[in-house]
Amino acid sequence: MSRERLDALREELKRQGVQGFLVPRGDEYQNEYVPPSEERLAWLTGFTGSAGLAAMAGDHAALFVDGRYTIQAQQQIGDQPLEQQNLNPAAIAGWLCDNLKAGESLGFDPRLHTEPGLAALKKRLAERDICLQPLDSNPIDNIWSDRPAQPSGHARPHPETFTGEASAQKRLRIADLLDEKRADALWLANPEVCAWLFNIRGSDIPHLPVALSCAMLYRDGTATLYLDEAAASDALREHLGGDVSLVHDKAQLFAAARRQHVARIWVDPQLTNCWTLQQLRAMDLELILDRDPITGAKARKNAEELAGSRAAHERDGAALCEFLAELPEAVDGGIADDSFGELEAVALLRAKREAREGFTDDSFDSISGYGPNGAIVHYRVTPESSLPMKPEGIYLIDSGGQYPDGTTDVTRTVALGDFPEQARDHFTRVLKGHIAIATLRFPAGTCGEQIDAFARKALWDAGLDYAHGTGHGVGSFLSVHEGPQRIGKMHTSVALEPGMILSNEPGFYLTGQYGIRIENLIFVKESEQYPGFMEFEELTLAPIERKLIDKLLLTPMELEWLNDYHQRVRETLTPLVNERTRTWLQQATEKI
Amino acid sequence: MSRERLDALREELKRQGVQGFLVPRGDEYQNEYVPPSEERLAWLTGFTGSAGLAAMAGDHAALFVDGRYTIQAQQQIGDQPLEQQNLNPAAIAGWLCDNLKAGESLGFDPRLHTEPGLAALKKRLAERDICLQPLDSNPIDNIWSDRPAQPSGHARPHPETFTGEASAQKRLRIADLLDEKRADALWLANPEVCAWLFNIRGSDIPHLPVALSCAMLYRDGTATLYLDEAAASDALREHLGGDVSLVHDKAQLFAAARRQHVARIWVDPQLTNCWTLQQLRAMDLELILDRDPITGAKARKNAEELAGSRAAHERDGAALCEFLAELPEAVDGGIADDSFGELEAVALLRAKREAREGFTDDSFDSISGYGPNGAIVHYRVTPESSLPMKPEGIYLIDSGGQYPDGTTDVTRTVALGDFPEQARDHFTRVLKGHIAIATLRFPAGTCGEQIDAFARKALWDAGLDYAHGTGHGVGSFLSVHEGPQRIGKMHTSVALEPGMILSNEPGFYLTGQYGIRIENLIFVKESEQYPGFMEFEELTLAPIERKLIDKLLLTPMELEWLNDYHQRVRETLTPLVNERTRTWLQQATEKI
Repeated sequence: MSRERLDALREELKRQGVQGFLVPRGDEYQNEYVPPSEERLAWLTGFTGSAGLAAMAGDHAALFVDGRYTIQAQQQIGDQPLEQQNLNPAAIAGWLCDNLKAGESLGFDPRLHTEPGLAALKKRLAERDICLQPLDSNPIDNIWSDRPAQPSGHARPHPETFTGEASAQKRLRIADLLDEKRADALWLANPEVCAWLFNIRGSDIPHLPVALSCAMLYRDGTATLYLDEAAASDALREHLGGDVSLVHDKAQLFAAARRQHVARIWVDPQLTNCWTLQQLRAMDLELILDRDPITGAKARKNAEELAGSRAAHERDGAALCEFLAELPEAVDGGIADDSFGELEAVALLRAKREAREGFTDDSFDSISGYGPNGAIVHYRVTPESSLPMKPEGIYLIDSGGQYPDGTTDVTRTVALGDFPEQARDHFTRVLKGHIAIATLRFPAGTCGEQIDAFARKALWDAGLDYAHGTGHGVGSFLSVHEGPQRIGKMHTSVALEPGMILSNEPGFYLTGQYGIRIENLIFVKESEQYPGFMEFEELTLAPIERKLIDKLLLTPMELEWLNDYHQRVRETLTPLVNERTRTWLQQATEKI
Repeated sequence: MSRERLDALREELKRQGVQGFLVPRGDEYQNEYVPPSEERLAWLTGFTGSAGLAAMAGDHAALFVDGRYTIQAQQQIGDQPLEQQNLNPAAIAGWLCDNLKAGESLGFDPRLHTEPGLAALKKRLAERDICLQPLDSNPIDNIWSDRPAQPSGHARPHPETFTGEASAQKRLRIADLLDEKRADALWLANPEVCAWLFNIRGSDIPHLPVALSCAMLYRDGTATLYLDEAAASDALREHLGGDVSLVHDKAQLFAAARRQHVARIWVDPQLTNCWTLQQLRAMDLELILDRDPITGAKARKNAEELAGSRAAHERDGAALCEFLAELPEAVDGGIADDSFGELEAVALLRAKREAREGFTDDSFDSISGYGPNGAIVHYRVTPESSLPMKPEGIYLIDSGGQYPDGTTDVTRTVALGDFPEQARDHFTRVLKGHIAIATLRFPAGTCGEQIDAFARKALWDAGLDYAHGTGHGVGSFLSVHEGPQRIGKMHTSVALEPGMILSNEPGFYLTGQYGIRIENLIFVKESEQYPGFMEFEELTLAPIERKLIDKLLLTPMELEWLNDYHQRVRETLTPLVNERTRTWLQQATEKI
């Protein structure tokens, strides 16, 4: 099937006069999750991971994926004529240089790429006299006959009880920053920044409660907002008020800017696609290329957002505990006919969350990994891969929910019965890393890359490590992976500031055997005792598997943290869970 | 006096048609230490620190210094009409924007700046319609009537017993990298990279044993080297061999490149001044702007360089121990007439080093800080500032030596008698940080910014920190501050690789009372037990003040490290020191 699609694409490329083409996994807003109409990479290759790139060059085609997806991609590619390669800029550039000739052109859809994202490749190809050619129409769209329609759900106001700040107030606050930069307007490149600035939410994208949108904010705090016509209800218009004009065609955004006599516009090149930059340049505007100020403002949650997140985490923790309490019996019940597996576990957990007030969606596809599947870092269970579960070994469940008051993301690793003895050492080292982050005090101005190694030290001591970041930012009823802050080896230069929510998720993975990860969401707050210093506070509430802990490896301070945390989990969640979970909770949080 | 110089400079700027001017503390090679002929900043302002910038704008003048030099600069500026400001790009740009008008020009000497160093300022000034104007002749040189002559000592071969690799071999190795980059030549921008590549040393600059030089390396491993005519002896010519042509005028470097038909040249924009880039651009060469490959090669010491460093550290440690052993008596002897102070201590230590084989120079100006002076991070003792020492309180001595087999840098903090009780807590926290780095195991690819916080954690726990980096690279009979590696909060993206020498120097400073710093040099080596992991090994040998240690704050592992280290210091140095120091060493390294 897919071989035919590759052939059809080659024909289409020939028609458009290019010898190669890039198929990224992304839409024009650089969204992490994309609507079905934008799943070009999956349509072409069968690969459904959340990051990847296909490249066509002459008779050759390749799929580039990162370490998380190596195994999944192999399975999904099957016997198609697609080389599998490592998703890194040097490998992509190298492959293209090897498979394209001097004088040839590599096509790309300028809506699906950013200029910084292509800069290094462009330079490298230019050295070989290969040209990067923006195409007016996406060749895949031209051959994808049954392409799903673009989504257009209603956009709805998001109440101030949750946001803690009116849109008008936010707009004036950001407008002040425009003033400082002497910018006449700010380009809002994606639905997340629009959702935050205008206090609206939607349902156009899986897991991310936004309406597809982009906008222009002016120096006086007024704005022009693009939304699909079907998305805009009367209630929404009333909510937006007279200072926000709605348009239903992106070209009207540029026309509106012209009417507003915008001369200097602030654009974040990391968020903005090449096509938009082309449009703005064609208007002869002066571009101020700098980091978008909303991303940072959105990341620093206010008191209402933090209170909302706490409340959402209580309900979410209660749901997770009910799931964990019922899991052993569910596993036992499925032994005879292998009827309870990773997929059924996801369904059970989803049902527990759906019973909780306000739940709208999972915040991402749950990672439900039993035994060896737990060792696949970004495993996504499918009917084919789902292993039946038994009362033995180790199970990893990483999941989260979207609630109007907050977004959750939590990982627990549990022992379903006997387990390899070394797992206790591995689990305890991961726990030591988790506690090191949770209890850290650090001076204002500290960035995530400066503290990441505390999460790894106990593993490093034993010559071990994990191949993913330690923490990502999390939105407020927005993306579960939100910038700009993160904790990881990668350079960010972003200070961890009060109000920022982060995950704390060290792990360890033994290929073919088991995966371990302990993830809580935490937020940054100023130290009361030590001015100028920051500390973390836990949001996530759920017991950490006591059976997997080697008490002798923990320091007295680490033991104290664990017992205090478990006491708080027990006291907070006991009133919120069903009877059998209450008993389970008592045991699961017993003092060590 | 200096007011007249400022006035004369203003006249000269008027003559050259600019309204402002930048006076950096640096020479055309971006050297950290500069010869007297290049001390323009000190001549103009009186400020003698190792980092700073003066700016002239209309009737105003400012001196920008960093936190290390705030106090020193205040004292040295005195009542001159010079505003003192913080040395950071935003402050400099802000001050210039405030003091220059649209349409005016800010002059600069293109030999003394790099393009990346000016890029942000240029952009910021352009927004205000202020132009950055390179000047053909330096206005200060035109009015500095008694400017010292430029140095020109002999350059001498540096034997292969110390370098471990012949220059021809190094040149072929680097030429391979040129090949990979399809570069015809590499621009060697400064004396340090020339010293390494050609295995030569000199004495043109204080503390840095190099001859002023720059060079062009070609793809076939041959080279053209610029050296002052007086620097080149017959022995040197013989050492360089037929593949290295000497020139005595920089213009001849460019002419030689033309004769070699160089079309593509690799230039490190961070190391190369604007003037050189102008020359290369005027030749219509294709510039490959990338990080210089020699800096990295030079940083990874080979087995001979590491053996040399070990040997140099033994002699240097013996000298330091003799100094520390004699210090109490010297202090006692000076009580009556205040005749032994910070300056005399420096002289005593220098004498001890000079008695050691091969010593050529201090590797930097010793920091000798008694009591409150120890709290000034980059304190440089002068006759005016030198405090007389008494048998009480805390003394900090940071010093190092240049030996043909290695460069040293060591800080010890000692109690001369009674001291404030809290100093014990502070010292022990600094020691805990020191040990955390010394004992760290980390995976290949880890950068300094990822491990820096381990040195700070014990201080952070108590709401404390220090305002300097934790470690800098150190050369092999070259600069005591050598890139590209470092351990600090700042972003480097430079992995700590086997053979790299670094300092490990956490500290704590209580303004007006005392300063604490414990500094050893260490080097990176591969872990034998854990493949893919790196560890550090100590080079520096000298006891750590036992009187300042609070044993109860140390973990068993930390105590073990300390006792093991002291045992090694004792066993290695006892045969190398005089009789009285042997007794002292025994006590100073006693098991805790």
